[in-house]
Amino acid sequence: MASSPIRKLTPLADAAKARGVKVYHLNIGQPDIKSPSKGLEALKKIDRTVLEYSPSQGFLSLREKISGYYARCGMNYSPEQITVTSGASEAVLFSFLACMDPGDELITTEPTYANYLAFADAAGIRVRTLKTDIRAGFALPPVENFEELINERTRAVLICNPNNPSGTLYGRHEMEMLAEIVKRHGLYLFSDEVYREFVYDGKEYVSAGHFEDLADNVVLLDSFSKRYSECGIRVGALITKNRAVTEGVLKLCQARLSPPLLGQIVAEASCDEDQSYLDGVIAEYGRRRKVLLESLSAIPGVVTSVPHGAFYAMVALPVDDAEKFCSWCLSDFEYEGETVMTAPATGFYITPGLGMNQVRMAYVLNEDALRRAVFILGRALEAYPGRKI
Amino acid sequence: MASSPIRKLTPLADAAKARGVKVYHLNIGQPDIKSPSKGLEALKKIDRTVLEYSPSQGFLSLREKISGYYARCGMNYSPEQITVTSGASEAVLFSFLACMDPGDELITTEPTYANYLAFADAAGIRVRTLKTDIRAGFALPPVENFEELINERTRAVLICNPNNPSGTLYGRHEMEMLAEIVKRHGLYLFSDEVYREFVYDGKEYVSAGHFEDLADNVVLLDSFSKRYSECGIRVGALITKNRAVTEGVLKLCQARLSPPLLGQIVAEASCDEDQSYLDGVIAEYGRRRKVLLESLSAIPGVVTSVPHGAFYAMVALPVDDAEKFCSWCLSDFEYEGETVMTAPATGFYITPGLGMNQVRMAYVLNEDALRRAVFILGRALEAYPGRKI
Repeated sequence: MASSPIRKLTPLADAAKARGVKVYHLNIGQPDIKSPSKGLEALKKIDRTVLEYSPSQGFLSLREKISGYYARCGMNYSPEQITVTSGASEAVLFSFLACMDPGDELITTEPTYANYLAFADAAGIRVRTLKTDIRAGFALPPVENFEELINERTRAVLICNPNNPSGTLYGRHEMEMLAEIVKRHGLYLFSDEVYREFVYDGKEYVSAGHFEDLADNVVLLDSFSKRYSECGIRVGALITKNRAVTEGVLKLCQARLSPPLLGQIVAEASCDEDQSYLDGVIAEYGRRRKVLLESLSAIPGVVTSVPHGAFYAMVALPVDDAEKFCSWCLSDFEYEGETVMTAPATGFYITPGLGMNQVRMAYVLNEDALRRAVFILGRALEAYPGRKI
Repeated sequence: MASSPIRKLTPLADAAKARGVKVYHLNIGQPDIKSPSKGLEALKKIDRTVLEYSPSQGFLSLREKISGYYARCGMNYSPEQITVTSGASEAVLFSFLACMDPGDELITTEPTYANYLAFADAAGIRVRTLKTDIRAGFALPPVENFEELINERTRAVLICNPNNPSGTLYGRHEMEMLAEIVKRHGLYLFSDEVYREFVYDGKEYVSAGHFEDLADNVVLLDSFSKRYSECGIRVGALITKNRAVTEGVLKLCQARLSPPLLGQIVAEASCDEDQSYLDGVIAEYGRRRKVLLESLSAIPGVVTSVPHGAFYAMVALPVDDAEKFCSWCLSDFEYEGETVMTAPATGFYITPGLGMNQVRMAYVLNEDALRRAVFILGRALEAYPGRKI
């Protein structure tokens, strides 16, 4: 299981805290941003006496709001083409279960979001990966590399755009390449776009949903978690114009009865939040990203791929083994009573040996905390016995 | 897909309502009982500004409350042996995915809860069923019938006790038989006990969790939905002393990040509700059950298996085809502007041809509505052209 490095570190972090050491968490994707006030107000106003089931596909009123949001994003999806799920996680699992059979193959890039692998494993699906390189900004490989992996069991290409863990944004050229591949081979294009708004440097965002001629190929995986800093409400969505996929997913949704009632109420109200909320959130992450990149550039031997989206950066450290270094930071190091926790990148790679000196950093701390965390990381790198430079 | 009969009926029910016909719903398991006030008060008091992730296994404080509840039920489960899920549905799906591989086999009774079949299908698991008969009160078949189905791919026996859809309660004798079978063959015993409290006529409840020597076999599937009339909060639990199962399920839980935050807060507070709440709920269902059975006994040609648990009854009607009858009630019949919707039992059977004249009734309406609904059912049976008596 790919996420095991973090699980091994958690008890070390707990032990460090028990010793009174302050731990800066750069390892997790839990934003500290406040949830939108419209969502929080709607929560306060819930006045039901029976907390009953909601429709399996999600409240129509919520699906209408999501449809409206997509229209603002330049995509035409009707409420019938939108299925509300328990977070994007359920959308991922149900899309795998509904669209593929055990033994079928899925192509994605590496490093990848570890939880895809857990769901694919559970569904008996073989994940084939294409390596992407930190020095090339984790850009997609050329068409030929995809073609080499495609065989009679290949059913889908899965992307996360902007990418978790790398922060890479796939632009128009790359999306057109993917469109061509899935069209030519009749594959699904599962596109996890939960970080859709988190795009920096004025870059254009090209959604898989923008390709009108891929109506039967594209399955969008979406969530309220990051956009509205509402990770806990567990409301996501699976969006597709492919009726057979909607039908298949709906069967699973009916089997699990309904998505969370309370979360849906919060989500629906959040859709009415002023655009200034989201503008403010993205501006905040933009400043944090700047702080992170500037602070990291001051540390000798550190290589960072400039992330154009999401709120993650993959960082190569001048160490023998990033897993060992991350453990050491928690168990053997502190600077003025403080230390830092990052996610070893091995949890995001499938091929053994890849990413051994890399970590993923989530810039979910405020600017001051982030600057301090990276400063401490620099001190740790100076002190670490396994330093390689 | 087994639940399709109901899905075919839903548009007919909507059309009837659009014509101004009142439809009594005996087809669904959504209780009309109020959720506990302690849960609703906790919801009102939520004062968070970031609706963030909770731990993948669920809040420790909630798992401690569940552990305490189990202690009161005479079972010793530590918080570490309890995993909070998005309803019992997720507990079912994750137990299938974690404990079985595609091609593995699961034994359960027929009629069965249709959603098990959807999840088994999605997980590539073959469901083998043992027929149970309405005239025998849907009692479990003898050991030999189980043994006949067990082969090298058999991994588990799945029961729902008290049973949905039949309302049958498996007593000590039947539970001991199951214990012997799963022990002898090294199988899991998945026991869906979401209706655990809903037991009538002073019958004893024997949980699979009461068998101390089945620690590695038993996986309990539980939920707050029915016990506390909180179907919408999507909080359930998977409970087992088998550490490997907990580990496997936890991997899936980590992949889906966390169970619903808001629902967990409501669930935790609900655990503190006075016992009088639950006593009142069970007494209410006891009265409804009496009304249902008495009212049905007044209709000629109707055969009912007396349900000792849950809030369902399977009823054989004097009709050619229950699916047709249920459709006809919605599309062609009304009595003083009212009609009734029940669930055709074919949705709960796998073997074609079984249960053709049966329906499942959920006694989730108040006594007056229930009496009226059954009266109208009697009128419908008199008028139905496909009557067989």
